[in-house]
Amino acid sequence: MSATVLSGKEPAAAIRAETAARAAELAASGTHPRLAVVVATADESSAWYVRSIARAAEKAGIACDIVDLGSDASARDIRHRLAVLSADESVHGVILQTPLPEGAKLEDLASAIAPGKDVDGANPLSLGRLAAGLPAFAPATAEAVVTVLDYHGVELTGLHVAVIGRSTVVGKPAAHLLLDRNATVTVCHSRTRDLAAVTSAADVVVAAVGRAGLITAEHVRAGAVVVDVGTNPTDDGGLVGDVDAASVAEKAGALTPVPGGVGPVTTALLLRHTVQAAAR
Amino acid sequence: MSATVLSGKEPAAAIRAETAARAAELAASGTHPRLAVVVATADESSAWYVRSIARAAEKAGIACDIVDLGSDASARDIRHRLAVLSADESVHGVILQTPLPEGAKLEDLASAIAPGKDVDGANPLSLGRLAAGLPAFAPATAEAVVTVLDYHGVELTGLHVAVIGRSTVVGKPAAHLLLDRNATVTVCHSRTRDLAAVTSAADVVVAAVGRAGLITAEHVRAGAVVVDVGTNPTDDGGLVGDVDAASVAEKAGALTPVPGGVGPVTTALLLRHTVQAAAR
Repeated sequence: MSATVLSGKEPAAAIRAETAARAAELAASGTHPRLAVVVATADESSAWYVRSIARAAEKAGIACDIVDLGSDASARDIRHRLAVLSADESVHGVILQTPLPEGAKLEDLASAIAPGKDVDGANPLSLGRLAAGLPAFAPATAEAVVTVLDYHGVELTGLHVAVIGRSTVVGKPAAHLLLDRNATVTVCHSRTRDLAAVTSAADVVVAAVGRAGLITAEHVRAGAVVVDVGTNPTDDGGLVGDVDAASVAEKAGALTPVPGGVGPVTTALLLRHTVQAAAR
Repeated sequence: MSATVLSGKEPAAAIRAETAARAAELAASGTHPRLAVVVATADESSAWYVRSIARAAEKAGIACDIVDLGSDASARDIRHRLAVLSADESVHGVILQTPLPEGAKLEDLASAIAPGKDVDGANPLSLGRLAAGLPAFAPATAEAVVTVLDYHGVELTGLHVAVIGRSTVVGKPAAHLLLDRNATVTVCHSRTRDLAAVTSAADVVVAAVGRAGLITAEHVRAGAVVVDVGTNPTDDGGLVGDVDAASVAEKAGALTPVPGGVGPVTTALLLRHTVQAAAR
């Protein structure tokens, strides 16, 4: 048995195409969608990711400003810049890139991003509104999990989904989105006892821990659907997920690849959110 | 076998005593803690609950204003009153009581409660901050679940907790508080397939659905700890939980009673939050 590959490329392409069309309409009516990405790190993989967002944005007809504050920026500098961008009418979406300088906390700083421009759902108000069932931008990675499953026809109602990882940017918002889709959701983490027993009771496993190859065949029930959110850089410049694909693919029914799974959908959703913000 | 009774009376009394002492200190220094409860319903059990809060507040040295807008109040009226109370420096805590008039939604209206006065954690920003690990008032009922378990020495780290119910006021915030305590958390609800199989895999079951007697012995593993959040009025003026106590007590290791379990702790926590808000 070998798992079906749940590619993210096709849904990402469809979202980018729809977004480009909407961006062109907005531009024709005088609104030029613009995204600002605030960076305060010298981290190489972060820089690579930000450039990939900028390229994708430009292809979709969205201007993208990379606002590099340097890795010695203070929390105060970052917060101030986020507030300035939030008040700038020509900017429709604002993202604060991680990692951040020592002592700066994403959840805290992101409260300076206006909720209407918070296209990566980083402001705690966005998370609270999401949890409360009110309109809000979800963190793009968390939304990408559900989007990939939708695209490949996984009907979530009544399924038991194990989310591994309880971060504010992925695990927790993904849990809320999955609950909204009527899945039964278990959130596991580093302190979970007998992780394999818990996750192999689930129909769907979402791995969002940030540790290469942590999830192996023993964590997955035969035929389960596995979504790999991990993007762990390898020494040779590549990217691997949290799932040990070689072993899991022999047991799971379906698996998202890394790269080419959740990642491209995440980027496409950031662009969609920016155009949605611009359309308001 | 008969389950240990996890009473809420003792922890509630301890919290009320500590709160009364703190309220007296504040009063001595010129700050008189004051709670406002906004009501827009003719519901009898709601009125009973509000009177019980007011009595408990007065005993603890906290003034309590019941602001009755009538059951025909519009969402706009309610929102306006919440904003006025939020701006009133003599008021330290603001609660919006449910049920609300047709068309008015708690999560939406509660965004008009200033986060610093949101002593029942109803503003979506409070929930988002809670989920993000930032300081915020938790909904008192959700916090009462963890408080009762703490008081009775249930060490949550590594335990598997099944929360039945995904409401914004109990199930979801309880899940976040339990995750913060390093429990593995499964959120179940009306669309969960084979609820009994899911909940009987858990070490702790938290019932927060609002249906009398829904949880029976088949939902609970032998020796499990069961927290009953339900407060369902009976025809004869009594109160019963979501748990069928007669059958569950024969199988569970421990069970919170209704009344006298989560309820009194909830009220005590509302008072504690009010005094904390006044102390700022």
